[in-house]
Amino acid sequence: MTIQTTEKSFPTTPRNRVKRMHERATYDRDAVFDILDSAFLCHVSYVIDGQPFCTPTIHWREGDWLYWHGSSASRMLRQLEKGAPVCLTVSHLDGLVLARCGFNHSANYRSAMCFGTARIIDQPEEKARALKAIVDRFYPGRSAELRPDSAQEIKATMVIGMQIEDASAKARAKGVGDDEEDYGLPVWAGVIPVKTVLGRPEISPHVPEGVVLPDHLAAYGEGRALDEVLGETQALYETLGETAARS
Amino acid sequence: MTIQTTEKSFPTTPRNRVKRMHERATYDRDAVFDILDSAFLCHVSYVIDGQPFCTPTIHWREGDWLYWHGSSASRMLRQLEKGAPVCLTVSHLDGLVLARCGFNHSANYRSAMCFGTARIIDQPEEKARALKAIVDRFYPGRSAELRPDSAQEIKATMVIGMQIEDASAKARAKGVGDDEEDYGLPVWAGVIPVKTVLGRPEISPHVPEGVVLPDHLAAYGEGRALDEVLGETQALYETLGETAARS
Repeated sequence: MTIQTTEKSFPTTPRNRVKRMHERATYDRDAVFDILDSAFLCHVSYVIDGQPFCTPTIHWREGDWLYWHGSSASRMLRQLEKGAPVCLTVSHLDGLVLARCGFNHSANYRSAMCFGTARIIDQPEEKARALKAIVDRFYPGRSAELRPDSAQEIKATMVIGMQIEDASAKARAKGVGDDEEDYGLPVWAGVIPVKTVLGRPEISPHVPEGVVLPDHLAAYGEGRALDEVLGETQALYETLGETAARS
Repeated sequence: MTIQTTEKSFPTTPRNRVKRMHERATYDRDAVFDILDSAFLCHVSYVIDGQPFCTPTIHWREGDWLYWHGSSASRMLRQLEKGAPVCLTVSHLDGLVLARCGFNHSANYRSAMCFGTARIIDQPEEKARALKAIVDRFYPGRSAELRPDSAQEIKATMVIGMQIEDASAKARAKGVGDDEEDYGLPVWAGVIPVKTVLGRPEISPHVPEGVVLPDHLAAYGEGRALDEVLGETQALYETLGETAARS
């Protein structure tokens, strides 16, 4: 077992080394972070009595720590108290790739797999910071405008955190990989792009008249790509955090 | 442990029973199938020496069997020979839900978690059928137009199959869940819809002149929602399969 590590990259271990199509892989921290930050949903895998579970949830990142919302809380709880090994994966589908034989059909995508040991965030200050971050990371500055969570609401929310120990990113972003011998075949081949986009914001009927869309939602314009917007709000959130820490 | 089962529903077991927000859950087969069929990507969780892995891949369904492409083949191989417990999850993000306190923030989504025992599909006829299905399920009728896979290509492709033993679906599809006491607060609240859509098909530069977009891609129109298109192609694929079996 060889562990390679540089400041810019995660170590490669038997756990995160990409075995299949390894030319599509990277262990670069920024590449992993970009893929994580551009997604709203992740999938978290954990094990209970030998049985794997794969739970979709909302995640956010601070440095090399990942946090997520405590979906399936009751199932995970006992595992987490012992410090559970977890794999958190984020994927973006970017295109359908159609070739001249079945084997060369593919997809364009970006994905990141992150490994670590999950723990419950239950220290009051740390949990309060996390509950602020879950709002402000997506909608920078929004938490200051909200009615604060009650003690009961805070108690009912579960936050799980994990420092990324190792991780890998994998991506395909290109045209059809037809064999040269197939170029002449009279069959359509190409890429159908796929994009996840925002619709027009729908205001709740219970909001008082005169309330307009706030500045912290400026990035969420109709028709914009969700991954781009989330990348921007993460960058803005990090800037605002830095400013606050300095002032 | 109580096992309930009806023809229309998957049995509920300690493994698939939804613990959190169970009012959003169903065990109805058609509800689970609809969510599976509307997605191109899934996430598969499996365990190796106590370590969970969460791998994104392409899946397809025939009746209550799920198949997927053998990503991470080398890692899973040894596990699968013994018959590995697997959890395959599909999720759709449909909206971001912004409320008047942090606690009531949420997301609109549809997800399905499926449990079973995975095995490698390596019987020649079964594997050939699966490799045809991976093309025709998404692009009904396309496989007949393609250059057939070579023996070497078939060998290099790994197909994994699993009969769904139990499963659950979970969905949120509604407006903001603000507390009534918060209705008067002068803060924007609402839903930002999210949709995954298709772009304009980009033909490969290596396709001979005069080849036009084929009928089997008619559903993949620019701007259409991917989940709707995939639901339609699954239905069409099932119809064509039935016709072929009858003729």
